[in-house]
Amino acid sequence: MTFGDIIREHRRSFPDGIALVDGDVRLTWPQLDERTNRLAGALTDAGVGPGDRILWLGQNSFRIWELLGAAAKIGAMVCPGYWRWAAPEMAFAVEDFDPKVVVWQDEEIGDTVAKARAELGSDHRALWLRHDSAGADSYESFLASGSPEDPVADIDPDAALLVIYTAAISGRQSGSMLSHRNLLAMGASAAWMGDIGTETSFLGAGPMFHIGNYQFWGVPAFVHGGKNVVVRRVVAEELLPLLAGEKCTHAYLMPPTIAQLVALNREAGHDLSHLRASVAAQLWEGTVPTDHSRFTRNGGGMGRGYGQTEVTGFAVTGAYGDAGTGNAGRPGPFTAVRILDGTGQECAVGEAGEICVRGDLVHLGYWNRPEINEERFRFGWWHTTDLGRREPDGTISFLGTTTRMLKSAAENIFPAEVENCIESHPAVKEAAVIGVPNERWAQDVKAVVVLQPGVEPVTAADVIEHCRARIASYKKPKTVEFVEALPRTKDYAKDYAVLDERFGGGGYPGGDQLGAGR
Amino acid sequence: MTFGDIIREHRRSFPDGIALVDGDVRLTWPQLDERTNRLAGALTDAGVGPGDRILWLGQNSFRIWELLGAAAKIGAMVCPGYWRWAAPEMAFAVEDFDPKVVVWQDEEIGDTVAKARAELGSDHRALWLRHDSAGADSYESFLASGSPEDPVADIDPDAALLVIYTAAISGRQSGSMLSHRNLLAMGASAAWMGDIGTETSFLGAGPMFHIGNYQFWGVPAFVHGGKNVVVRRVVAEELLPLLAGEKCTHAYLMPPTIAQLVALNREAGHDLSHLRASVAAQLWEGTVPTDHSRFTRNGGGMGRGYGQTEVTGFAVTGAYGDAGTGNAGRPGPFTAVRILDGTGQECAVGEAGEICVRGDLVHLGYWNRPEINEERFRFGWWHTTDLGRREPDGTISFLGTTTRMLKSAAENIFPAEVENCIESHPAVKEAAVIGVPNERWAQDVKAVVVLQPGVEPVTAADVIEHCRARIASYKKPKTVEFVEALPRTKDYAKDYAVLDERFGGGGYPGGDQLGAGR
Repeated sequence: MTFGDIIREHRRSFPDGIALVDGDVRLTWPQLDERTNRLAGALTDAGVGPGDRILWLGQNSFRIWELLGAAAKIGAMVCPGYWRWAAPEMAFAVEDFDPKVVVWQDEEIGDTVAKARAELGSDHRALWLRHDSAGADSYESFLASGSPEDPVADIDPDAALLVIYTAAISGRQSGSMLSHRNLLAMGASAAWMGDIGTETSFLGAGPMFHIGNYQFWGVPAFVHGGKNVVVRRVVAEELLPLLAGEKCTHAYLMPPTIAQLVALNREAGHDLSHLRASVAAQLWEGTVPTDHSRFTRNGGGMGRGYGQTEVTGFAVTGAYGDAGTGNAGRPGPFTAVRILDGTGQECAVGEAGEICVRGDLVHLGYWNRPEINEERFRFGWWHTTDLGRREPDGTISFLGTTTRMLKSAAENIFPAEVENCIESHPAVKEAAVIGVPNERWAQDVKAVVVLQPGVEPVTAADVIEHCRARIASYKKPKTVEFVEALPRTKDYAKDYAVLDERFGGGGYPGGDQLGAGR
Repeated sequence: MTFGDIIREHRRSFPDGIALVDGDVRLTWPQLDERTNRLAGALTDAGVGPGDRILWLGQNSFRIWELLGAAAKIGAMVCPGYWRWAAPEMAFAVEDFDPKVVVWQDEEIGDTVAKARAELGSDHRALWLRHDSAGADSYESFLASGSPEDPVADIDPDAALLVIYTAAISGRQSGSMLSHRNLLAMGASAAWMGDIGTETSFLGAGPMFHIGNYQFWGVPAFVHGGKNVVVRRVVAEELLPLLAGEKCTHAYLMPPTIAQLVALNREAGHDLSHLRASVAAQLWEGTVPTDHSRFTRNGGGMGRGYGQTEVTGFAVTGAYGDAGTGNAGRPGPFTAVRILDGTGQECAVGEAGEICVRGDLVHLGYWNRPEINEERFRFGWWHTTDLGRREPDGTISFLGTTTRMLKSAAENIFPAEVENCIESHPAVKEAAVIGVPNERWAQDVKAVVVLQPGVEPVTAADVIEHCRARIASYKKPKTVEFVEALPRTKDYAKDYAVLDERFGGGGYPGGDQLGAGR
């Protein structure tokens, strides 16, 4: 089964079912099937074929779903770009992704797109289609030019379909290629977790350049013939009538938006009784029903999890088995997880190593990054660059990133693991670990610790002993500094640059740490 | 992901979880993983490799699950044979399936097995292992001889794993080959339908030579790390303490067994409060909770459905979308369904044709039946040999078999469709349609009709007119006979042989009707 087959089936199974809502647009499954046929035909006429690429430069739109459907039917791939990209970033994406077609939006970002095109010059001869107009070079004119016939073709379910640019690697973003199979497996497992079905009406207010909105719950709703209500961008006042009018059962909303909605609805009084509050139940303050038993498995199972775009979202969650001790839960039946050391051997239970994944949820690799892909798929497992641990009860703990690493003699030390150990001390509120240059051993481990307020103070020796008893001795801090608070970046991450500067950190191994001796 | 990967993962995710219970045997996931490793090792030592076959001649046993796990790890396939087979049927299965290993049971069927082996003579040099003993030629000795190391091998998820002998084709049974992917997709979709998870404790009292017990709910429980409680054969007195003691949430039980259990438990008073009654709720007479909302999607969704072993069970069910008008429901996201005519063209909505299926649930074909497979997979779709119709609301109606066909001039007529039409007349209780030889047109359509008791009688002309208005004119009966009751076979099917004899039927096209002009 391919993503295109899903649309073909729903055309037949749900002849009156609404697939997509976006502003005034309401498409039934038969209409969506015909429009994706036309779009696929027009793309074929424009020379787009298997493996070719389409870039979207705009905000959320039902047209992203259409492009996915059309690309699915001809074996092409679609990248919904980040609409807040600056012009040089857009230009980079065009150069890197090398699309045959770019669909762009004039509203809000037309100037940036124009600057990016000017920067690209004439080197890139992609076909540029404007989606928010009806002119000759518009998406709608293009679509209308295609044949309504189904472009029947044998498309490999393991072909790339959705590409999402993600974490900066070597200083640049890379496009994670998700296949038909990735999306269908994610749709099936998320539907099981969240009890998604044909009756689901999903308000997709999350950004479509991010995996979250697809998993919770765009794709599961789509593959089950449910309704996707697309929101161009989040404006609380506009969401309320949509939630009520479309009888939305699920929505992708951030906590501040929920707070706004709750406040606004005190006066507006829209009927939100179809909505299921899920893990955000508290935030809704009783405005919507909180039927946990129907919404998620294991009550708050969804509160635990580990994932990344490259494993099609949350590949490990609290929905599988009991809650357990690990903060990430367990993999489901489409996923295999191993905690591996640098030699590809499985770490013992309780020992930290890199979280590695196999199975139907693992992406195909990054577009146009063969060396990185080879490295990250070493030993036959996708290496997430995240540090984890298998707990004695079988659950997995996510500890932090492996991309920050210290070096002591021949040993690699991941600050995330040491911090996690120190933070397990009842007197410790939080900790940051840095490396301090040591001429003989490369680096020494230094811990910067914030204590819980009002507890019996502990000494550096206590902290060191706590670690010695729990993790390999070479990982324990050699020195400990106590501070009132850790410096933070604007994203509220621990600011290691400031810590290094303040406490003499430095001498870190490698420049690009990927694969550095691991 | 393969079926072997599932066991490997559960060993790690559920170190204390019980995978299998069978009599005194209780295996945790780590124990099952090790035993399947040993068994895989011993099989490899015995020369069993990818594509090789293992035949089980016995009743239900946890060892069938073990054999599946071991075969999965080395790419072999397992057929759980029908333990009630007579000796010649067992001998046929051995000759047809050509297994390298046969695991057999002495209790109850030892004599039959001995007869089958005598019949086979020395032509078949399979390794015969007795599973219900501990001697030198026993399954347990064999397993113990294998290495506990995981036989790490790259197994294709599309390789055959479980083979089930099914419907007689050309007078002989054929083994439907189900792949790892078939089973995992079925496990995922059934888990979604039935709300199966790690907490599931399934009493597998259905026969393991039949797909039913695997789908409802053996495989979904297995792939989610739940517990399979295996029952050798159904003895109501023994089931009650098992249901209570193992806190079974689900069970595969036939209505007469449920009636026995309800009667027995009036005195025995076992605690069955963990069991969910599901669609059989009425039969339980309040003995167990009837939480429909948790058990199945769409309330009685599971009451509707269409399937066959060859599509890994119920591939079309009432769980997808609203109940609708068709008696079979709709396909889920792993399945594509088309109603095709004899030329491979899709029938219009409301027109009867053959139910054809594609996707992750469609089997690989029958073992050792290349011509039949080619025929049944024509036009790229699995042809079920069942007659169906797409209703205007998108649901599918199963009408009957296409293997009974009449011929009138150049037209093929399926009795199931005509019967279905006649039975839609409010005055008709049931109908059977046969072909009567006609020198010029090959056959005429004759209907044998039983009227509803107490209704205004209708005439032959009424019945014919009813059909003329609803189906193509050439399909309508030329003659109609009214009878008090239809003759039945011992399986309560309409007995067409008797009808032909009594009403002059004959002249049916083809001997083997598969593909006869369709």
